[in-house]
Amino acid sequence: MVRVDSSTVTLGILGCGNVGAALVELIQRDGDTIAARTGIRLQIGRVAVRSLSKERGVELAGDVWTTDAASVVTDPSIDVVVEVLGGIEPAHSLISESLKSAKPVVTANKELLANVGAELFAEAEIAGVDLLFEAAVAGGIPFVRPLRESLVGEQITRVMGIVNGTTNFILSQMSAHGTSYADALAEAQSLGYAERDPTADVEGFDAGAKAAIIASLAFGVRVVAGDVSHEGIAGITASDIAFASQLGYTIKLLAICDRFDDGSVAVRVHPAMVPDAHPLASVRDSFNAVFVQGEAVGDLMFYGRGAGGFPTASAVLGDVLDASANLRRGGSASVGQLGRATIRPIDELESPFYLNIEVADEPGVLAAVAASFGTHGVSIRSMEQEGLGNDARLVFITHVAREADVRSTLRELSALDAVTRIGSVLRVVEAS
Amino acid sequence: MVRVDSSTVTLGILGCGNVGAALVELIQRDGDTIAARTGIRLQIGRVAVRSLSKERGVELAGDVWTTDAASVVTDPSIDVVVEVLGGIEPAHSLISESLKSAKPVVTANKELLANVGAELFAEAEIAGVDLLFEAAVAGGIPFVRPLRESLVGEQITRVMGIVNGTTNFILSQMSAHGTSYADALAEAQSLGYAERDPTADVEGFDAGAKAAIIASLAFGVRVVAGDVSHEGIAGITASDIAFASQLGYTIKLLAICDRFDDGSVAVRVHPAMVPDAHPLASVRDSFNAVFVQGEAVGDLMFYGRGAGGFPTASAVLGDVLDASANLRRGGSASVGQLGRATIRPIDELESPFYLNIEVADEPGVLAAVAASFGTHGVSIRSMEQEGLGNDARLVFITHVAREADVRSTLRELSALDAVTRIGSVLRVVEAS
Repeated sequence: MVRVDSSTVTLGILGCGNVGAALVELIQRDGDTIAARTGIRLQIGRVAVRSLSKERGVELAGDVWTTDAASVVTDPSIDVVVEVLGGIEPAHSLISESLKSAKPVVTANKELLANVGAELFAEAEIAGVDLLFEAAVAGGIPFVRPLRESLVGEQITRVMGIVNGTTNFILSQMSAHGTSYADALAEAQSLGYAERDPTADVEGFDAGAKAAIIASLAFGVRVVAGDVSHEGIAGITASDIAFASQLGYTIKLLAICDRFDDGSVAVRVHPAMVPDAHPLASVRDSFNAVFVQGEAVGDLMFYGRGAGGFPTASAVLGDVLDASANLRRGGSASVGQLGRATIRPIDELESPFYLNIEVADEPGVLAAVAASFGTHGVSIRSMEQEGLGNDARLVFITHVAREADVRSTLRELSALDAVTRIGSVLRVVEAS
Repeated sequence: MVRVDSSTVTLGILGCGNVGAALVELIQRDGDTIAARTGIRLQIGRVAVRSLSKERGVELAGDVWTTDAASVVTDPSIDVVVEVLGGIEPAHSLISESLKSAKPVVTANKELLANVGAELFAEAEIAGVDLLFEAAVAGGIPFVRPLRESLVGEQITRVMGIVNGTTNFILSQMSAHGTSYADALAEAQSLGYAERDPTADVEGFDAGAKAAIIASLAFGVRVVAGDVSHEGIAGITASDIAFASQLGYTIKLLAICDRFDDGSVAVRVHPAMVPDAHPLASVRDSFNAVFVQGEAVGDLMFYGRGAGGFPTASAVLGDVLDASANLRRGGSASVGQLGRATIRPIDELESPFYLNIEVADEPGVLAAVAASFGTHGVSIRSMEQEGLGNDARLVFITHVAREADVRSTLRELSALDAVTRIGSVLRVVEAS
């Protein structure tokens, strides 16, 4: 399709790291095509960076660059502000300032939204301007817009996401090659998939921030990073992976958002055993995916690149064009006012569990262990036993059980003389 | 989020089969929630059906029903028209009439759009009203909106879809249980997944219509059903499935839309060998998925239910709410004017091929067969031989080859005395 009228929209970009530089390159390369297709001519007005001397591989006129981010926001020639700085400050103040001066904002900042998203959405609502953030949740995957628009009439009951590429790469390596966690992490670091300090990824903080944003959008309530319970993947062993595989499962780090009939929600990040036939089980390497269950639509999954300069810039670009179109026609998308969520404590959640327990290989031990499960109302679905010299490893899969009951069982088990070690305890995702 | 202002939007629904009845049920059940969330109160004004006496399991006041579809379109109380009749006429006239009277239309009609979509999009553009069709391409999967909006700035090079649930169910059964095509088809029929006359599904016509719509949207050019070349799955044998599996592939019926550097496009539906690690390989049973390759965003996949009353109604409902919001704020989505596509003939397309050829088990036969490949410039990547009594089966995977060259090779091979039978010839999808 070809349009003739084309209105120019001038961008102020805050930050020019991987994503910012890729965005500039996309606009320079595809600007003509985009103008022909959408009628919108994107122009890069100002780019704010911390240091003017750093080489960024981006060609822009000298007067476009500035170290004064606040001046970009207040510059009357800037129509749309793109925030790709990351972190809470100064991003928070700059975005607030933009919204107050009725300038639409596109951000890729998950940390910011997971902490003060609801406040910012309310500011955008009051100002009547767009605050768009497709890139903040699952990188290049178009997920926020389908969730907000296509599924606005849908009753969503659960969202499960593989939203951290680093941990998915590590688990995929362990799964494909029997690698240990430490070796897989080292490989991820050498390939640039993992930071030197991998805590934010491997302990689930990054996924937790995204889970808070997803839950807020999917359920229309305010969930912040602090509401998300999380466990990381550092305790997963090659033996867990091997057992999982033998039992027909793949271990994935999942962000799980549930809404219950009483309106309460639970949001958590933890490794889980996913049945091999589940669509999430085939999401390998550094890919991301978000699996959605709705009452009418059934199961949906959105798959793609959750990180990387160009995929993330692609999502930012989609938002920029949306905000530009809204500017032209005088509307704005809105998340609305989010009421505080009632968070269901993790103790009350239920699922089947996988438990890996090392015991002395003596008569009567299995009976004692099984009795502990029974006392706490945890019912066993299957058990496998493996010799370990003088010890034995017992691997249990339970029927659906309450977290609190499983914890009580584990406390009692760890007090038994015959129990040498409590290994991994993983939730099991049921086949959908 | 809770809104107080709520404006009523009155729907006229044309047709009340599976999808129409599910839509009415969704609106009746979730209307309050939807109004609270979006500020839009949906009301069912009129429902047009062919016969008033048929039981539809839908409770509506008597005066809502009518057999006069044209009167629904002209009724001044109707704000948005929903067309779920299917087929070309009277759907085409009714939609044109609605657009002319500036009434937005939501349709789930793939056959109509694959034949006269470009005309209808142009009519909608002229009238400045919405013609939305999320449900026409991949049922409940939100794919059209992400493609039109999130990816509007993306250069899409290829889209591959599993867009027919019936054939995917049949191939999944053959793959999982070694069933023959005939038995798998019979099972699909007994479960209600396949029609008594399964031609539209198994010969690829249904998928072809969807492919035409997808290509039009993804590449911004006019592609109609007649531009799509197609082959069905009736010739796929249990032995093809077994060989594919042995070689690390899964056979899927794919709708493939390509855009080339010269601007030409190719759109086709045929069974193909998909590498097991490719995300499309794990799409099982009656599920659908659309895999998109973009220059910046990389690989994306959208997965879900491609058919069924409630999933399809969910997509229709999303469009209805979008059209309602546009009505309120006075805008409309637009596909724009689509210029005629330059279709690249299938003969000029290239891919690796799988060929299953039965030959007399005699000395020199392989050399003769291999010579034929060489003559036509088709290079062999791997070969497996299997005894069949006095005959042998040769299974080849070629390097990337032109369709025309493979066809010439096959013509020459079938003329050889030693060649007993040319079995399946399948394109191979390369790992992404």
